[in-house]
Amino acid sequence: MDSTSDFLHLHRLGVDTHQEPVVYMRRDCHVCHAEGFNAQSRIKIMTDHHSIIATLNIVDSEIISHQQAGLSETAWRLLHAQEGEVATFGHAKPVESTAFVRGKLFGKLLSDESAYSIVQDIREGRYSDIQLAAYITACAGQGLNVNEVIAITKAMVATGKRFQWSGQEVFDKHCVGGLPGYRTTPIVVAIASACGLIMPKTSSRAITSPAGTADTMEVMTPVTLSFEHMREVVEQHGACLAWGGSVNLSPTDDVVIRVERALDIDSEGQLVASVLSKKIAAGATQVLIDIPIGPTAKIRTQEAAAHLQKLMVATGEALGIKVHAITSDGTQPVGRGIGPVLEARDVLTVLRCEPEAPTDLAERSLVLAGALLELAHKAQPGEGFKLAQKTLWSGKALDKFMAICESQGGFTEPELAAQQHTITASQHGIISYIDNRFIARLARLAGAPEVKAAGVEMHVRLGDAVEVGQPLFTLHANAPGELAYALDFLQLHPEAVRIEEEYL
Amino acid sequence: MDSTSDFLHLHRLGVDTHQEPVVYMRRDCHVCHAEGFNAQSRIKIMTDHHSIIATLNIVDSEIISHQQAGLSETAWRLLHAQEGEVATFGHAKPVESTAFVRGKLFGKLLSDESAYSIVQDIREGRYSDIQLAAYITACAGQGLNVNEVIAITKAMVATGKRFQWSGQEVFDKHCVGGLPGYRTTPIVVAIASACGLIMPKTSSRAITSPAGTADTMEVMTPVTLSFEHMREVVEQHGACLAWGGSVNLSPTDDVVIRVERALDIDSEGQLVASVLSKKIAAGATQVLIDIPIGPTAKIRTQEAAAHLQKLMVATGEALGIKVHAITSDGTQPVGRGIGPVLEARDVLTVLRCEPEAPTDLAERSLVLAGALLELAHKAQPGEGFKLAQKTLWSGKALDKFMAICESQGGFTEPELAAQQHTITASQHGIISYIDNRFIARLARLAGAPEVKAAGVEMHVRLGDAVEVGQPLFTLHANAPGELAYALDFLQLHPEAVRIEEEYL
Repeated sequence: MDSTSDFLHLHRLGVDTHQEPVVYMRRDCHVCHAEGFNAQSRIKIMTDHHSIIATLNIVDSEIISHQQAGLSETAWRLLHAQEGEVATFGHAKPVESTAFVRGKLFGKLLSDESAYSIVQDIREGRYSDIQLAAYITACAGQGLNVNEVIAITKAMVATGKRFQWSGQEVFDKHCVGGLPGYRTTPIVVAIASACGLIMPKTSSRAITSPAGTADTMEVMTPVTLSFEHMREVVEQHGACLAWGGSVNLSPTDDVVIRVERALDIDSEGQLVASVLSKKIAAGATQVLIDIPIGPTAKIRTQEAAAHLQKLMVATGEALGIKVHAITSDGTQPVGRGIGPVLEARDVLTVLRCEPEAPTDLAERSLVLAGALLELAHKAQPGEGFKLAQKTLWSGKALDKFMAICESQGGFTEPELAAQQHTITASQHGIISYIDNRFIARLARLAGAPEVKAAGVEMHVRLGDAVEVGQPLFTLHANAPGELAYALDFLQLHPEAVRIEEEYL
Repeated sequence: MDSTSDFLHLHRLGVDTHQEPVVYMRRDCHVCHAEGFNAQSRIKIMTDHHSIIATLNIVDSEIISHQQAGLSETAWRLLHAQEGEVATFGHAKPVESTAFVRGKLFGKLLSDESAYSIVQDIREGRYSDIQLAAYITACAGQGLNVNEVIAITKAMVATGKRFQWSGQEVFDKHCVGGLPGYRTTPIVVAIASACGLIMPKTSSRAITSPAGTADTMEVMTPVTLSFEHMREVVEQHGACLAWGGSVNLSPTDDVVIRVERALDIDSEGQLVASVLSKKIAAGATQVLIDIPIGPTAKIRTQEAAAHLQKLMVATGEALGIKVHAITSDGTQPVGRGIGPVLEARDVLTVLRCEPEAPTDLAERSLVLAGALLELAHKAQPGEGFKLAQKTLWSGKALDKFMAICESQGGFTEPELAAQQHTITASQHGIISYIDNRFIARLARLAGAPEVKAAGVEMHVRLGDAVEVGQPLFTLHANAPGELAYALDFLQLHPEAVRIEEEYL
């Protein structure tokens, strides 16, 4: 670019395109003309100090002038742009690593080098949404072998920040989702750290579920912590409950998760890479993985669970951490609430040892905490559960949880949604089936996880006897439109909960 | 939606987002607030007469008011919107057919029903770009079996218009691309129709190549014909050379092609469905398919060609048409020019029997035209080539070609690009290798096919002896930036043409 007329002035257009950086130029501006840009061209934008790649939208109206290039919010942030700043523009070089994505589609395996190159390009914002969707689709299902998963995990660790905790065993736990309301993490972390374990816990937001642990924690305390803030919390209390994305431990993860969410697909390999890269980045040396199995859970069969266990352990080993993967019952939702606020309330009732605390959520948290306490040699084999129970009942876990929240920025009591609608039994009988996926989808249609208080509150569990008119579950939503939308869906798919006549 | 406050006024924002419909709303407008919309939400927009699904971009500036919803050009067109018209908004129901795409990723085959449902949803604009990318990626490589390809082909035929030509054999030809400059179609159609064959030819634009037949024809004559106009041209001349997208013969095809182009991937199954659905829609009863084979052509091995041939013939049979698939030499570019204008000039020199006409292009056109003439019993077996040659040399093919162009809207002589840069031999020797893919990529970097005159003009062929300084090929571009860009790429990848020392 040798001509000084090749620049435009940057203008913050105030358009939120989600994560994809978009640049807006007049069709007849001199840059479009000289460079032969078209709608959807991938453009390199250069200022004195930064450069990014953005997708072009062509403008035929007065929302920008011929001397301006409009930037979407993401483009503005990535480019660290100033209003009116001068920038030059060129065709973005083809992103070389997309050749590896194409290769993968045609049967070529990802190597350490190609995985690194892809992950690095995603991290730098060089992939368009279409390219991201292709990469994620190519990795979906059981599309990645163990070496590819290891390669992606390594790449995700290498492209993010990483905590080092000197000379200690550092613990972490993770549950492979799919079970609505299964929100053990805050309870397990509170118990384990109350017993002296180091647990710098980072969690994700929901992918296809109505809430992730980060979404749930966020209704009680800030989870978007800086790297330094997270370190302080852990140094003070031995644990934290932060959002992984905020500390940049695995920066490509949230980009991948956003597109997975838009596609409503999970990939086993991406799942393993996502989980373990964050554990490794958080400095964990021992990780407990819980895999619930059930016909409508994420993992439906013993075989699938065994495959995932093997992949988790092998990947952990290749990256120098010890992974303990256990399975559990995944036939129905856990706790009462499904959705950030409703789950947070369940967590609090357990920590506060209130009489309405869901027994299943408490039990399962104690099992996991107990396993961690045994791994850490805080309890003899077989004695972990009891120690966990003692710690919960003594109020030490609640104290620890509150201390962590205070340290993260303060505790807030979660508040229920404005709109509630209860579904009742239309016949008497026994609850014979609860569809986790439909329940989760209902919660999402009601607005979760974006709308924190939205979700589903279950009133029954498998095997319960119900009378006609007895409440089955309650929909929570903030807006009447969302409530109506969830009810519409329920009318089309009434089989979320099945009731069978009692056997005479 | 029971409240009258749930509407906004539509405003044409003048933003070209390519094919994806986008709607722009103020973050704090009452509709976003009431419905809980977020950036990238999929929104259903309803006016009195139409409804569409669009992706939401959230606006935090004054480019629209709180009472307005801005529409991208595509959204504006699909919704047949009027400035200021009132519309209501809701969450788009999840597109049901995306469940089939997810199923496909996890190993479930596409059925007639699921393929139809996907193709129909794509046709109706219900897929976001991310969802399109996932569908295309899932079908890429040899990801579709013959029954799935048949199902997609049927669906593509069923969702478009279709020509019926009463009581006659109708011919078509197609070349499976990958060979830069291989532009036989206009010549073959001119010869065959001059001999009385019915050839209502529709062609695509380029997917990953620097020019498709439609792109090349467009520099000489309009190719965007209405259904009725195309029928008139064929009734008058027995043939046409139109762009398939314009007559809506296979409406999902261009959407698929756009995303395939962005990803730079082809799928064998989509290729067969794309080709045959358009032939069937054009009313063809017999189709000649030419598959060039070469190490850098689209089809690289005899095995891959045989697989494709089988798939083509089986799919044709299932849909009631006869497919004749032949293979040819695909080791190097054909003709001299690569890019719409440069290829059009090659075509014209052949039709005009000019001395500089590329012999290879002429020969290969005659082989294909000859095969068609034999299939149509216009020539005895083995005599087709001679009849084709006679027709070309007599000027009848040129007359027919010009008549078709006139009938489509007039003939224009194609003009060369402003910027030209010739690459010369840096050593003497024999041309031992020409990389079709690099040559094609160079032409694209120079601006083809969007910039019609851009491309590459070859001066050498395999086996030619060259001296130092002798021209190898010339880059053509309209803008200095594009030329520089192509030259940059060439510097990184100088092996487009390899010269070896003469064997002593």
